[in-house]
Amino acid sequence: MRQLLAFAFAFCSLATLAQSTQIRQYVTNPSNQFRWLNQYREFLSIPNVLGDSVNMVKNANWIKDWLSQKGVKTQLLFSGKAGSAPVVYGEVVVPGAITTIAFYAHYDGQPVNPRQWNEGLSPFVPTLTSDRLDKGGKIIPFPTSPSGIDPLTRLYGRGSSDDKAGVFAIMAAYESILASGQKPSINIKFFFEGEEEAGSINLAEIFKNYGSLLKADQWVICDGPRHISGKKQVVFGVRGDVNVDLKVYGAKRPLHSGNYGNWAPNPAMRLVQLLATMKDKDGMVTIKGFNDDVTPLTDTERKALAAIPPVDDILKKDLVLAQPDGNGMSFMELLTIPTLNINGIQSANVGNMSANVIPTEAVAVLDLRLVLGNDVDRQVNKLVDHIKLQGYTVIDHEPTDLERMQSPLLAKVTKRKGGYNAQRTPMDLPIAQQIIKSIETTVDYPVVRVPSAGGSLPLYLYEQLLQEKPITIPIVNYDNNQHAENENVMLNYLWEGIETIGSVMTMRETLKMGGKR
Amino acid sequence: MRQLLAFAFAFCSLATLAQSTQIRQYVTNPSNQFRWLNQYREFLSIPNVLGDSVNMVKNANWIKDWLSQKGVKTQLLFSGKAGSAPVVYGEVVVPGAITTIAFYAHYDGQPVNPRQWNEGLSPFVPTLTSDRLDKGGKIIPFPTSPSGIDPLTRLYGRGSSDDKAGVFAIMAAYESILASGQKPSINIKFFFEGEEEAGSINLAEIFKNYGSLLKADQWVICDGPRHISGKKQVVFGVRGDVNVDLKVYGAKRPLHSGNYGNWAPNPAMRLVQLLATMKDKDGMVTIKGFNDDVTPLTDTERKALAAIPPVDDILKKDLVLAQPDGNGMSFMELLTIPTLNINGIQSANVGNMSANVIPTEAVAVLDLRLVLGNDVDRQVNKLVDHIKLQGYTVIDHEPTDLERMQSPLLAKVTKRKGGYNAQRTPMDLPIAQQIIKSIETTVDYPVVRVPSAGGSLPLYLYEQLLQEKPITIPIVNYDNNQHAENENVMLNYLWEGIETIGSVMTMRETLKMGGKR
Repeated sequence: MRQLLAFAFAFCSLATLAQSTQIRQYVTNPSNQFRWLNQYREFLSIPNVLGDSVNMVKNANWIKDWLSQKGVKTQLLFSGKAGSAPVVYGEVVVPGAITTIAFYAHYDGQPVNPRQWNEGLSPFVPTLTSDRLDKGGKIIPFPTSPSGIDPLTRLYGRGSSDDKAGVFAIMAAYESILASGQKPSINIKFFFEGEEEAGSINLAEIFKNYGSLLKADQWVICDGPRHISGKKQVVFGVRGDVNVDLKVYGAKRPLHSGNYGNWAPNPAMRLVQLLATMKDKDGMVTIKGFNDDVTPLTDTERKALAAIPPVDDILKKDLVLAQPDGNGMSFMELLTIPTLNINGIQSANVGNMSANVIPTEAVAVLDLRLVLGNDVDRQVNKLVDHIKLQGYTVIDHEPTDLERMQSPLLAKVTKRKGGYNAQRTPMDLPIAQQIIKSIETTVDYPVVRVPSAGGSLPLYLYEQLLQEKPITIPIVNYDNNQHAENENVMLNYLWEGIETIGSVMTMRETLKMGGKR
Repeated sequence: MRQLLAFAFAFCSLATLAQSTQIRQYVTNPSNQFRWLNQYREFLSIPNVLGDSVNMVKNANWIKDWLSQKGVKTQLLFSGKAGSAPVVYGEVVVPGAITTIAFYAHYDGQPVNPRQWNEGLSPFVPTLTSDRLDKGGKIIPFPTSPSGIDPLTRLYGRGSSDDKAGVFAIMAAYESILASGQKPSINIKFFFEGEEEAGSINLAEIFKNYGSLLKADQWVICDGPRHISGKKQVVFGVRGDVNVDLKVYGAKRPLHSGNYGNWAPNPAMRLVQLLATMKDKDGMVTIKGFNDDVTPLTDTERKALAAIPPVDDILKKDLVLAQPDGNGMSFMELLTIPTLNINGIQSANVGNMSANVIPTEAVAVLDLRLVLGNDVDRQVNKLVDHIKLQGYTVIDHEPTDLERMQSPLLAKVTKRKGGYNAQRTPMDLPIAQQIIKSIETTVDYPVVRVPSAGGSLPLYLYEQLLQEKPITIPIVNYDNNQHAENENVMLNYLWEGIETIGSVMTMRETLKMGGKR
């Protein structure tokens, strides 16, 4: 029996390797890379910030057309909410396949402030550079013929990594299989969302509307970066996330800072004093009970965490940081506890626009990441209670004059829509082992297994509404500036991502998984 | 002798009253107000933010042309520095006059951020409203004929109060005297600066270049608001002022707040923690030695301060504030100590533009107001020492990678150009008493005497370079939003300001002042 099993695995391994080689040949072919680069450039040129409905539909149709041209049966899925961006859905049924895997990625990107992007860059004008710009890279022209593209080339543009890369890699992986004369070993479902960066506000509706269409043996999320060491990784969980807007008030009119200075309270000073109470000097959150409801890691998760290659020193060097936050805890450990982050703060103006003024208000946007055990409402309430403890009256609306006159300290606290809890999939899920094995045919090292990513996706919805336990296969370089200005992808990661997904689509189904995971 | 003096004063008072009546008639004449309003509208339409050289010259020429048309001998004074805005100078020599008064105002305004202005307003599109907009005022059309303009009408636009109002009132006062068939009792010098809001960075050069031209028996500064009670006031000093830019750093690249949250230091959090240490909960500055070098008020100044009508309750109501800063000190007392104010703070983005990011840097602009005894460099050094005490390495340039790696806490602190010390003129200056008497012919209450305004002007330069001790006659409404969005002037204050300056220009010179003040 042991011999038989050993033989089966050896066979499986060889067969997968053969398929993988064909995919690699296709992916590394300069003509294919040249064509993909031009297609991806076109895709990234379509603005993808939620609210721009016209362009969101344009993005969706661009994806749908691409899939249709490859013979995939496609349709747009709608939440029914006006102005919401559609999901692009596609389906491939493979004769003889007994497993169905659904591949998720999202085509929307974070909001952009073009003025913050480097000179020569514009969020929706994809631009090639010889290296990372802050590492001395220079802007280079797009190639005009398939003469071979340096794999270290970077492509800058909103969504280049997060997460049009996921969409594109999944589509190109399918193309690679067909075009290299193979067929997938599994049934494939494509699911490309357009509202992830807004907290997937309508994903629940989609799941409710199309539940039967979305059944699969496994959901694979293609989003986020590969391990900081550069290694491929599979991730079994995500943090939850909720944004909170915070606003404090001064006089009802802006005031001359000389004529009123020392007398009129400055809301910017109020806000900094309030925010300063939320963390200590090591960046540890000081809000009462902030970590109290955290579910401890399982033994498996703890062991996996310990096995992950350390990254602190790499990161300190790359990010040019003398000292990280976290009071001595490691990078990976810190991803397993909830966060409080200032996404942005503003009061009046700085730089050339600044004036000698006492502003009327000061605002901050906070980002609370949640781990298993935390709950969105409970976490926000801890924050609200903390603000009250500092002497503030907390309101959820612009203050009336009466409220201003009654409370020296007024804070408007607004939980943004789209917050959600963390999700974690058991690390010993059998089909996940099979997927990891497939990916390992493309590399010569053990794929990194991560209990939970630091980032967030509303994966709890898969559990709640589809009874699914998704896993995540991230493909892009970690230094991609996702969510910020100068977002970019290293082309090599895009090509390897295509191969990674291709390996999963052709994975050897030696055994039908026993029951539903 | 006592009888003779009494008679002389009685006569003086009557004569001044007569002149004042003629000016009032001219100023309140609807035709004149209609013409002035149109002229002032034209003046305010010329953008007046330093850096916009073309428009600054346009402003200067507009003023010069106006004066020339009234027969004033004018010239532009230049600092010799490229791109600097010229001073408009004018001179009127009155046969028989034995006193020369120089009138100062400035035509430049604070920078503008049009998006922050109320709907329907634009900084350089002067707009009339029926009342203050935040008190329910509505936008109204400009009158098309001199049918009488409601004196409570507001005129919105950058510079409408600070300080094109001063420029215009001085010019219109001179017109009023001529047009009502009188002549000034004094020689007049007009001096209109274009760089006050940038700290009068070239005023010293002008004083050096044109010192002999600028001799006068008294300099009168027409800038700032009347007393909050609405009463006219004369001010004997100003606070000094210096701006400081403060910048702290995080990772060299912006980071995804999930992937790095808890590990990568957030510069916004660093900055709020740093700024929070600078004031206590009552808004009192906590920087060591901040008030140590303050020159105590003289007895005269203390008495004058005590005689000023209290304003705290008026202000709390008007500004809709439950509790001012200052630990129980009165509004006027708080203007006699130095300040530290956050003019603006920013890191990444807020509102719809916010993203789930850990920013790379956070900046604040501070405004330090100085009182007599403080010194710009000393005051800034106290701030720098305080920042160092919080564990920061203070630099004056963007950090090198080496500096980033060596210091977990790095702060770039930049003292802006144009900072200056406070100035105070003795309150018993004889010519000032005479000027106050003239102004008191236009009202039925004692003019408010203020030892020092909260605001700033580089009046120390008059002492240092011209051996002058200026006094200030402010004319505009206190609730004018100067330095901020929605700057406005109430027309009544503009008209009364013309009358005020007119009364000084026709003041009775019964006695040549004994010596130079």
